Amino acid sequence: MAPGMDSVDEALSSSAGRPRLSGLLASASDEVLLLGLTPPRRSASSAEAAQIAAVTLARLDGLDLDGLVLYDIDDESDRNPEQRPFPYLPTIDPAVFHGTFLSAWQKPVVVYRCVGKYPEDALSGWLCDIEPGQVLSVFVGSSSSEKPVHTTLEEAHALRDKLRPELMLGAVTITERYSRRGDEHLRMLAKQARGCSFFISQVVYDVDATKSLISDYFYACTDRGLPPRPIIFTLSVCGSLKTLAFLKWLGVDVPRWLENSLQRSPDPLADSFQHCVTNARILIDFCRNLQMPFGFNVESVSIRKAEIEASVLLAKEIRTMLR
Amino acid sequence: MAPGMDSVDEALSSSAGRPRLSGLLASASDEVLLLGLTPPRRSASSAEAAQIAAVTLARLDGLDLDGLVLYDIDDESDRNPEQRPFPYLPTIDPAVFHGTFLSAWQKPVVVYRCVGKYPEDALSGWLCDIEPGQVLSVFVGSSSSEKPVHTTLEEAHALRDKLRPELMLGAVTITERYSRRGDEHLRMLAKQARGCSFFISQVVYDVDATKSLISDYFYACTDRGLPPRPIIFTLSVCGSLKTLAFLKWLGVDVPRWLENSLQRSPDPLADSFQHCVTNARILIDFCRNLQMPFGFNVESVSIRKAEIEASVLLAKEIRTMLR
Repeated sequence: MAPGMDSVDEALSSSAGRPRLSGLLASASDEVLLLGLTPPRRSASSAEAAQIAAVTLARLDGLDLDGLVLYDIDDESDRNPEQRPFPYLPTIDPAVFHGTFLSAWQKPVVVYRCVGKYPEDALSGWLCDIEPGQVLSVFVGSSSSEKPVHTTLEEAHALRDKLRPELMLGAVTITERYSRRGDEHLRMLAKQARGCSFFISQVVYDVDATKSLISDYFYACTDRGLPPRPIIFTLSVCGSLKTLAFLKWLGVDVPRWLENSLQRSPDPLADSFQHCVTNARILIDFCRNLQMPFGFNVESVSIRKAEIEASVLLAKEIRTMLR
Repeated sequence: MAPGMDSVDEALSSSAGRPRLSGLLASASDEVLLLGLTPPRRSASSAEAAQIAAVTLARLDGLDLDGLVLYDIDDESDRNPEQRPFPYLPTIDPAVFHGTFLSAWQKPVVVYRCVGKYPEDALSGWLCDIEPGQVLSVFVGSSSSEKPVHTTLEEAHALRDKLRPELMLGAVTITERYSRRGDEHLRMLAKQARGCSFFISQVVYDVDATKSLISDYFYACTDRGLPPRPIIFTLSVCGSLKTLAFLKWLGVDVPRWLENSLQRSPDPLADSFQHCVTNARILIDFCRNLQMPFGFNVESVSIRKAEIEASVLLAKEIRTMLR
């Protein structure tokens, strides 16, 4: 290898020899696998957070992930007047969790940013600190138009363009918004025009509507001569009726037949696992057939151990299905 | 075989050795295959109608059908202010078509009756004339609540109960009504309580919503200790954009991804055929898993030759998938 190529290689390849996440997403030709994590609650001590990080990384050992997604949890109770099935607990800043407790994680992370939570100088400080090869981000707007925000999505994009244009930025896409308003694919195009180069979906249970969203997005791109950007589908198992209630509270459309099936199942976690595998299969076949770039992000919306462990098994299963 | 068993055997078995349709539907344990036909237009001469019947029966030769469905076409333009993509043409009465032109057809027929079209004495005359072992019926109510009717659905049911209680009666079920109002499964229960012992769906393109309808119906039955009655899913290929427009005019929900796919396909008929096979597979797996009795009715909503021939091939393909 010629001298000087090392650094290029380092930027594009992970230790396992797969190109780095930003390379995968930039080329939009590979099928990406991520795992989504919620940082520990803010009340955890440093020792507790370190312990959680160690247990988590041990769980992920042997999973050939392309990266982690670190969520930025916001109190979205303004969005839904119903009682939240799991209580809202403030969590450690995902960038802090990454920097302080996940140093053993060598691969990229996608740091979510609910930008409305942060004053501009806090966002600027973080933007200046990050290492763009290692960190990607998804900016999330406010959960409701009434909620007061420190920084709008537009302002956050302008800051990134000014301070860190090389930061690879993704955006959220929501099937349920497509089902209600029918224009989510156009919102995706607008986000793409603002510099977003990939999308991460909310938890997908309504696969048929998701196929329609992808189809409309794909053809809207091709009709405009734009290359479609990768969509990373988020899957989460649902191991109990409480988790099902939480998914619905979060605004996830669970098809009625699937809800009935989980409600009447003697083992909802095992059934839900199988449904997630089936859903992944349907989305993989659909995207490959359309030549739509895609990937998966596996998370557990519940913090129950059985569901977290099942999500790791699900990621393992999905890796065998991806190219 | 003991003397006297012949007639029982004749009543329950077709020439091919499969039990007769009414037996299949009564036992609700078999998977039924029907083919739906629209009678020739009323302006056809007797010679033309006979010729159409002969061509049709020749097409069906070798198909192991359990019966035919003969539609009673009504002018439903009151239901939809948009222009009907195919013009409405009055058609021969399905019972007349059966009695006069389909005498070579030895198996049962399901005669649709848009009951609002007929005065009570006309319905009574037909009811007295039919041979219940050979003929089943589906009573269809008015296409809109404003439309004046000669006989209501309730009156038609009362007539049948009085004159021909042994006539096996089915009812229509509509996924799109379930999607809009959410109570179609309860309407099915009400129809069951009025004596309907099977259901024939409108053309199914929205398979996911249909699964939800079946699921809600199945569990509504089991929660009440009622045996679920068979649902016969109607499938129709869609070979052109005009047929697609007609399906939508008829009120069929075509998932957006499927609509996009057909609109952009170089061969919508072949693609639609494959989608119908896939949809049949999904419905078969779902119903078997739930232990929900079911069957299929294959029709062509278009009168184009290529689509009619494809519907016969589709019925042939589905027969290989059924037990």
